[in-house]
Amino acid sequence: MRTPDEFNDWYQDIVEKAGLADKRYPIKGMNVWTGYGWKAMRLIDSYFREEFDGTDHDEVCFPLLIPQNEFQKEADHIKGFGAEVYWVTHAGENKLDIPLLLRPTSETAMYPIFHLWVRSHADLPLKTYQIVNVFRYETKQTRAFIRMREIHFFEAHTCHKDFEDAEVQIREDLDIMARLAKRLCLPYVLCKRPDWDKFAGAHYTIGIDSLMPTGRTLQMGSIHQYRDNFSKPYEITYEDEKGAHVHVHQTTYGMSERILGALISIHNDERGIILPPDIAPVQIVIIPIISKTEPELVLARCKELAETLNTSGYRIHLDLRDLRPGNKYYDWELRGVPLRIELGARDIQSNVITLARRDTGERVQIGNEAMLEGISENMIAIQANIFAKAEQAMRGSVHKVSDLKDAQPGINVMGWCGSEDCGHSIEQATEMSVLGEPVGAPPTSTKCIVCGSPTEKTVYVARTY
Amino acid sequence: MRTPDEFNDWYQDIVEKAGLADKRYPIKGMNVWTGYGWKAMRLIDSYFREEFDGTDHDEVCFPLLIPQNEFQKEADHIKGFGAEVYWVTHAGENKLDIPLLLRPTSETAMYPIFHLWVRSHADLPLKTYQIVNVFRYETKQTRAFIRMREIHFFEAHTCHKDFEDAEVQIREDLDIMARLAKRLCLPYVLCKRPDWDKFAGAHYTIGIDSLMPTGRTLQMGSIHQYRDNFSKPYEITYEDEKGAHVHVHQTTYGMSERILGALISIHNDERGIILPPDIAPVQIVIIPIISKTEPELVLARCKELAETLNTSGYRIHLDLRDLRPGNKYYDWELRGVPLRIELGARDIQSNVITLARRDTGERVQIGNEAMLEGISENMIAIQANIFAKAEQAMRGSVHKVSDLKDAQPGINVMGWCGSEDCGHSIEQATEMSVLGEPVGAPPTSTKCIVCGSPTEKTVYVARTY
Repeated sequence: MRTPDEFNDWYQDIVEKAGLADKRYPIKGMNVWTGYGWKAMRLIDSYFREEFDGTDHDEVCFPLLIPQNEFQKEADHIKGFGAEVYWVTHAGENKLDIPLLLRPTSETAMYPIFHLWVRSHADLPLKTYQIVNVFRYETKQTRAFIRMREIHFFEAHTCHKDFEDAEVQIREDLDIMARLAKRLCLPYVLCKRPDWDKFAGAHYTIGIDSLMPTGRTLQMGSIHQYRDNFSKPYEITYEDEKGAHVHVHQTTYGMSERILGALISIHNDERGIILPPDIAPVQIVIIPIISKTEPELVLARCKELAETLNTSGYRIHLDLRDLRPGNKYYDWELRGVPLRIELGARDIQSNVITLARRDTGERVQIGNEAMLEGISENMIAIQANIFAKAEQAMRGSVHKVSDLKDAQPGINVMGWCGSEDCGHSIEQATEMSVLGEPVGAPPTSTKCIVCGSPTEKTVYVARTY
Repeated sequence: MRTPDEFNDWYQDIVEKAGLADKRYPIKGMNVWTGYGWKAMRLIDSYFREEFDGTDHDEVCFPLLIPQNEFQKEADHIKGFGAEVYWVTHAGENKLDIPLLLRPTSETAMYPIFHLWVRSHADLPLKTYQIVNVFRYETKQTRAFIRMREIHFFEAHTCHKDFEDAEVQIREDLDIMARLAKRLCLPYVLCKRPDWDKFAGAHYTIGIDSLMPTGRTLQMGSIHQYRDNFSKPYEITYEDEKGAHVHVHQTTYGMSERILGALISIHNDERGIILPPDIAPVQIVIIPIISKTEPELVLARCKELAETLNTSGYRIHLDLRDLRPGNKYYDWELRGVPLRIELGARDIQSNVITLARRDTGERVQIGNEAMLEGISENMIAIQANIFAKAEQAMRGSVHKVSDLKDAQPGINVMGWCGSEDCGHSIEQATEMSVLGEPVGAPPTSTKCIVCGSPTEKTVYVARTY
């Protein structure tokens, strides 16, 4: 186990070593997505799309720039984001009449248009999403994928006829997250954030947190119930059956490149990162074990094998570099490729291939006739194994605490009366954050850890990123 | 045939009517991509990716913002873009030390990093591309997809060991364009731009122009040979076999959402747009012809049919709206869906479906057993037909001209001595632009249309967007 400091150093280092991003771009908090990292992110995006297309959301793309006057319509939202936005004030030689800001999130770009799109109850629910770059002028220390100033962002925005229909949407969102997490091998906890930590303008916020090896939680995404907090200032109304104009209720669902940051942080070992098969830009790397006697034969069979596996739908890389096999193993283990095939003259003679699993290091020989089945079984096993391991690690770091002095790295579970005063006392005493009430978990306590009043509320408390 | 003014009105109108974009966003030149238009654009993007992935380009993603000092390294480039860039000067309450600009194109974002990526000849060729939003402060009248201030942009950037290897890349780019054009059903001409119209910083520029129904050409893309014009100021060098540090030669290939603008402009009739099957977000729309006697049966069979066709890989929409079939035909013809299937109780009894082709309006009945084959044949026929029609229209608008007074809408072909003076005389006399020398076309003239000097140079001249 690495200490938190060791982990942080390792993380900053592996991002570049594994070829996921280049941090040398001359603006702080803005990295270059290199080929390998961008492919992984695009695979993650493709699962977002699959889920949201499959639940009747329409993919759209709104402009990046937002006029100052539109941005300022919802008071809490300005308060929350005002200090973090980048301002475009000039174009060419001209000063702009109205300053434009780079979206930190797209509520204020979208809602003036939703005002035009929503006319009658027949237009509802309106379900949209987009995958775009957003900008936040972070003042804290930046960190690849985790705290950036340009962020690769997913955001779903929906409008509904009433509060209850928006709640239905939130339940659908939670189901989507459960399916995504399984695919991405990412365990998480859901917490309804305390009022002082909800999204700027939201009625309530559900945080989607993963637990990092440092014992801190990372918010990978969040789901918001806006009620009519935005539809009032942006005048998003519909005519109901009786001809009355009614404000819609809205929800949003945000996720970001933090998902990739969490993946790398959670799935790794001393050799490097371990990518879940669904995310891996290269799922199988083929390493020819060139013999002096029959180099041609080995190469030809490796190419044939690459072709076969490619046709079967796997993302394949055949490593033909002029390096020793051991050096190649090292490189691809570092970069997290789930399966490696080693193929030499002896294997060819015996009609077998050698498979090495990245997660366990196991090496097995499979006969050619059983190859496709063997690979498929191994992929499923890797996916299941790394998810199970991560879930176990998370569960092992959830501690019930009945005295604030016992709070420790990981997630601390305690009773809370629900008052903001007691909440802040918890945060001060533990130097941690109240993540909020776990969603869907049964109450585990009978009294507030601060004031001792009887309560059924449980909260999760942790250090956060 | 619409007059140019009628065409312009029709175009501005159809973009919104067909649901491709919403022009009501409160910043001039920045539209909202609505679901249907964005799907079409993403399909176009997928063919870009297929081509460039298939020719060993790596997809990357560079930051949007560029520091002023990096932008200013190449003198011609600043001159060309300086008046068009948006400046970020503040973040939150702070004035930035160094102003940042929104990329108008990514040379000056990428090349400081290419300086780090290219070390030795083994790193070459370096072939990358990205699909991103770029920003240009256009002062001319904006027009959806054609002249925007936020532009959906494709850009490939490559580095090579020498000029000749960069030329090899340009030949590969031209092959890619030929394949893309076939897929997108977009005829085009290639012209080597005159010096005064080449890309800011380029050694030479090849424009990829389509001919619009107004008789004007639209530059849909361009391919640039940079030689070492950028690698010198950005110090992109490699160590050759002898240990010498040599500047790389570079190329770029740019395309944009103008491709979609050209598609709509070129393929349409009085009923609306006509989308090539490969670009159509909906390839087949199914319209149930509900009878009073057996409404359930018809609906059930329509759903079954949608499922079957979906499984066969077609993008299907089953229109279940409570509208008359005729109204539905109208809507989907407007939006350009290539094939319509009408299915009623009588068709079901006779085991047939009725297919209607968007491009020709033809309606045919096909027996159920031949359905998949019939649909596939019709798709191929539509693709071939609309491409052939567009090619014919373009060829019919290319005129050989031996007197400047004869220049007319379309592409005018004439002799040119190559001097800038005569070039400008051509432009003044015709009120058109010199597109440049056609690439790969044989010389057709013997003397300059202005000065009369003997020449083998032919130029294309046209009004442009």
